[in-house]
Amino acid sequence: MTDASDAHWVLTFVCIDRPGIVHALSGAIVAAGGNITESQQFSSHDTGRFFLRLQVQSPSTAQQFAAHLVPVASRFDAEWRLDRVARPVRTLVLVSKAGHCLNDLLFRSHSGQLPIEVPLVLGNHATLEGLAGFYDAPFEHRAVTSPETKALFEERVVAAVEEHDIELVVLARYMQILSPELCARLAGRAINIHHSFLPGFKGANPYRQAHARGVKLIGATAHFVTEDLDEGPIIEQNVIRVDHSADPHELVRIGQDEESRTLTQAVRWFAEHRVLLDGRRTIVFR
Amino acid sequence: MTDASDAHWVLTFVCIDRPGIVHALSGAIVAAGGNITESQQFSSHDTGRFFLRLQVQSPSTAQQFAAHLVPVASRFDAEWRLDRVARPVRTLVLVSKAGHCLNDLLFRSHSGQLPIEVPLVLGNHATLEGLAGFYDAPFEHRAVTSPETKALFEERVVAAVEEHDIELVVLARYMQILSPELCARLAGRAINIHHSFLPGFKGANPYRQAHARGVKLIGATAHFVTEDLDEGPIIEQNVIRVDHSADPHELVRIGQDEESRTLTQAVRWFAEHRVLLDGRRTIVFR
Amino acid sequence: MTDASDAHWVLTFVCIDRPGIVHALSGAIVAAGGNITESQQFSSHDTGRFFLRLQVQSPSTAQQFAAHLVPVASRFDAEWRLDRVARPVRTLVLVSKAGHCLNDLLFRSHSGQLPIEVPLVLGNHATLEGLAGFYDAPFEHRAVTSPETKALFEERVVAAVEEHDIELVVLARYMQILSPELCARLAGRAINIHHSFLPGFKGANPYRQAHARGVKLIGATAHFVTEDLDEGPIIEQNVIRVDHSADPHELVRIGQDEESRTLTQAVRWFAEHRVLLDGRRTIVFR
Amino acid sequence: MTDASDAHWVLTFVCIDRPGIVHALSGAIVAAGGNITESQQFSSHDTGRFFLRLQVQSPSTAQQFAAHLVPVASRFDAEWRLDRVARPVRTLVLVSKAGHCLNDLLFRSHSGQLPIEVPLVLGNHATLEGLAGFYDAPFEHRAVTSPETKALFEERVVAAVEEHDIELVVLARYMQILSPELCARLAGRAINIHHSFLPGFKGANPYRQAHARGVKLIGATAHFVTEDLDEGPIIEQNVIRVDHSADPHELVRIGQDEESRTLTQAVRWFAEHRVLLDGRRTIVFR
Repeated sequence: MTDASDAHWVLTFVCIDRPGIVHALSGAIVAAGGNITESQQFSSHDTGRFFLRLQVQSPSTAQQFAAHLVPVASRFDAEWRLDRVARPVRTLVLVSKAGHCLNDLLFRSHSGQLPIEVPLVLGNHATLEGLAGFYDAPFEHRAVTSPETKALFEERVVAAVEEHDIELVVLARYMQILSPELCARLAGRAINIHHSFLPGFKGANPYRQAHARGVKLIGATAHFVTEDLDEGPIIEQNVIRVDHSADPHELVRIGQDEESRTLTQAVRWFAEHRVLLDGRRTIVFR
Repeated sequence: MTDASDAHWVLTFVCIDRPGIVHALSGAIVAAGGNITESQQFSSHDTGRFFLRLQVQSPSTAQQFAAHLVPVASRFDAEWRLDRVARPVRTLVLVSKAGHCLNDLLFRSHSGQLPIEVPLVLGNHATLEGLAGFYDAPFEHRAVTSPETKALFEERVVAAVEEHDIELVVLARYMQILSPELCARLAGRAINIHHSFLPGFKGANPYRQAHARGVKLIGATAHFVTEDLDEGPIIEQNVIRVDHSADPHELVRIGQDEESRTLTQAVRWFAEHRVLLDGRRTIVFR
Repeated sequence: MTDASDAHWVLTFVCIDRPGIVHALSGAIVAAGGNITESQQFSSHDTGRFFLRLQVQSPSTAQQFAAHLVPVASRFDAEWRLDRVARPVRTLVLVSKAGHCLNDLLFRSHSGQLPIEVPLVLGNHATLEGLAGFYDAPFEHRAVTSPETKALFEERVVAAVEEHDIELVVLARYMQILSPELCARLAGRAINIHHSFLPGFKGANPYRQAHARGVKLIGATAHFVTEDLDEGPIIEQNVIRVDHSADPHELVRIGQDEESRTLTQAVRWFAEHRVLLDGRRTIVFR
Repeated sequence: MTDASDAHWVLTFVCIDRPGIVHALSGAIVAAGGNITESQQFSSHDTGRFFLRLQVQSPSTAQQFAAHLVPVASRFDAEWRLDRVARPVRTLVLVSKAGHCLNDLLFRSHSGQLPIEVPLVLGNHATLEGLAGFYDAPFEHRAVTSPETKALFEERVVAAVEEHDIELVVLARYMQILSPELCARLAGRAINIHHSFLPGFKGANPYRQAHARGVKLIGATAHFVTEDLDEGPIIEQNVIRVDHSADPHELVRIGQDEESRTLTQAVRWFAEHRVLLDGRRTIVFR
């Protein structure tokens, strides 16, 4: 056990898999005076890549710690990241009219249960200004009613990402499709939530289709935003049981509960650096 | 409370919804000396139909009870059915090589937990002959290797349904597509099980696709067999959580557990007359 | 199908079970021009009582409808209640410092997803005044620091119940034990939420005990308040999976999510008149 | 990626936590030509112990591999174990009359889904002889009707453990309390399954108590056998939803499904060396 005054670090490390990675990394950690308190690792048979997430207690400063890690990362040509455990991740939230997801995110971050900070909420409607305000989250309303205003909205997203050094963009029922350019720019750091069903339904009003088909489970999927609408790498999914007596309106209400808890969970894992990309899949070190 | 020697009946009653149905039916039940012990009802906004399932204790014989019900059914032009609670339903099971579903069905019916009797198991492979034999279920092997042998297999199904007065045909991982003619003939009394995912996957080897996509939930759907492959009215669905570390082979194993428990549940509800058809949907009075 | 302008009614009816109840009631409904749209019934083997919940569309006024029901209720010596579907139930919420349950209740009632109205939130701490205020729910702070101030708090509860014609009192993590007198006075109309575990743990800090014991599931139970602390009739329960890596602090956070969704569900069912008492048990017509 | 002809090893390693363990171990693995394919680790704040489970591909023989590990284990005074991935664990199963758990274990091991082999099933009733025989598992019946016959049964257990070099004893609804001596002798390698409820119920017929109390969830807990009946370290738990309409008999049936799947899961994790003891808790590397 290490001194309680030690800092608690989280390290993620991704590279092509080959022998010796853990040995080299653990050597650097020993040299930094660190003790590993949590470790998860995965070797992907699909891509041949190696994924590691460590939590380490160490008296080193970030710079000192990093100095030990750089040679190892360089030797294995790794993507890596060192952060303090529980540091709030700077998060931009995009919303429309429905507040259930925003409410969950802000309530939990505000009560210290979700390590994010929200320097800006951007809405294409003004509906949620009051909710954001209650939790001291700055809110801007930019109507999206045409291709031009949509482009302006997205420009504002890009500017806000720069301005606030945003690490994560959350589409909390934003209900608009992002342009391919914005998707590309935010790749791997924008999370969306949508309903999901077994079987899936294409086209308009999926809740009506789900009702018509008499599904017994409805659910929600949180995924990274990509150009392929609702086809990005999945981060988290949940379902809940329904029966024949629920009409489409009630299915929507039930589905919303799954949406908010699924999105919150995905955001929590992202903010804790537990979500790593392996091509079209995510590795989630829960 | 009624006399313990009374018989316990289950009545299902489906007709166009209009006022007075329950009043008329409950009058007939009073006249038959019956007491309603369980009642579930549903009015479908989609089709305007009324669905009722009752359990009734009554000293009447089936004939006496039916005599009271016939005028009501006639007046409302209803489809109805009167049966004894827990009477085993005559069930034909179709199998291929995988035994997990057959094992679940036979173990449970054999130990008195599932009200079915199985006068015949028909396999397109001989693999499960021993398992069926252990539970005293007659087994026939009819290879399906060509359109001709497939037609012969289906003829045998049709003959067996007649011969054993079959009420339910269960495709317990039978792995063959039934001909449209057989689907039509067995409409509403044949249940299939298949894996299901969020999102759904089309085409071959869905478990491989699910792995490639990194799904976090896999599941199974039990449904009535229709000509539209895997698109029949859904009876029951379950999912289970998986993560990135499960390879396609392991997903199959995990999925099989969901398949057997989902199919068994659907068969139980059918055998208890809890499943009623409302167009493309099922009403399941759990 | 009835005229869309008809009112939608919910009727609950509880009496000693004997033949003819449904027939008599359905006769009264026919006489009131009503059509049953939803029906659930249960005969308790434990107590010999009969429980019925109906939804009925009828052009009658409440008075007209009731006039038809009174003779039936009288004949069967029934407890019964007639209400409009979706009428908001007048709810008094008691809180302490933790806001997760209050937040869930107020967000959902405010966004039209939970049929309650909250004329008063009473807190033994002032912490949640802002949250209540955001949702326009009047808030009063009455400190409880001694037997005397506890008695004063409870007097205020009693007065508020009278003043606002309260139908339901919700202990949303109120963290104080109600006096036996208040429990008796609020019997059947006060709901509490508490964590629950398998196995259960007695005594202080159950989350620490649950961690020490290495439980794999933690949960929450919503129940009616009775003198026997945490032993009142259960309305709803949920659990969620945890593992060895969660420390007691994290178990508390995870447990809170279950607490708020379990309490909200119990309140919803109560407000929809779906919860009926059968001795120490509840009948929940979901 | 390593040569497909390499063996796949699983290594567990438990010692007092201090810096350098992973570095030392990974050095030994590199020296053995190994590549880590799966890794999970946990540092217990409760006991100060360090737990590690690795899967390693290596061309070494067991002896060669072990030779590299011994100095590290010695330096950290560790308990460790090296085994081949998926080697069937020699398992003795104790049964009484109920077959649902035995059926699940034997069906899955027989179809290659559960890495155990069962050289003996010991029953205090002869009921399950046929089921064991169908899966080619030797069965012995030893009646337990008195303290003397109980002692004889336990002597047979001890002898069988020696004779068959048993690694795991599974109480598959054996329904007898083991003597303290036998519990001590089998510590950490005997797994029991029992029903569990929220809240827990003491005394006879818990299903009747659960019904009387109106619980909404029933479940099962698999745990290591200890002298404290049903209080041993928990390995796995599951619950399923029930409602007021289920009588005690039906609760038993529903509970049995949870018992068999929970026990099978616990046995799978044990057989894969995923379950490690940390005092009264288990660490389960799922």
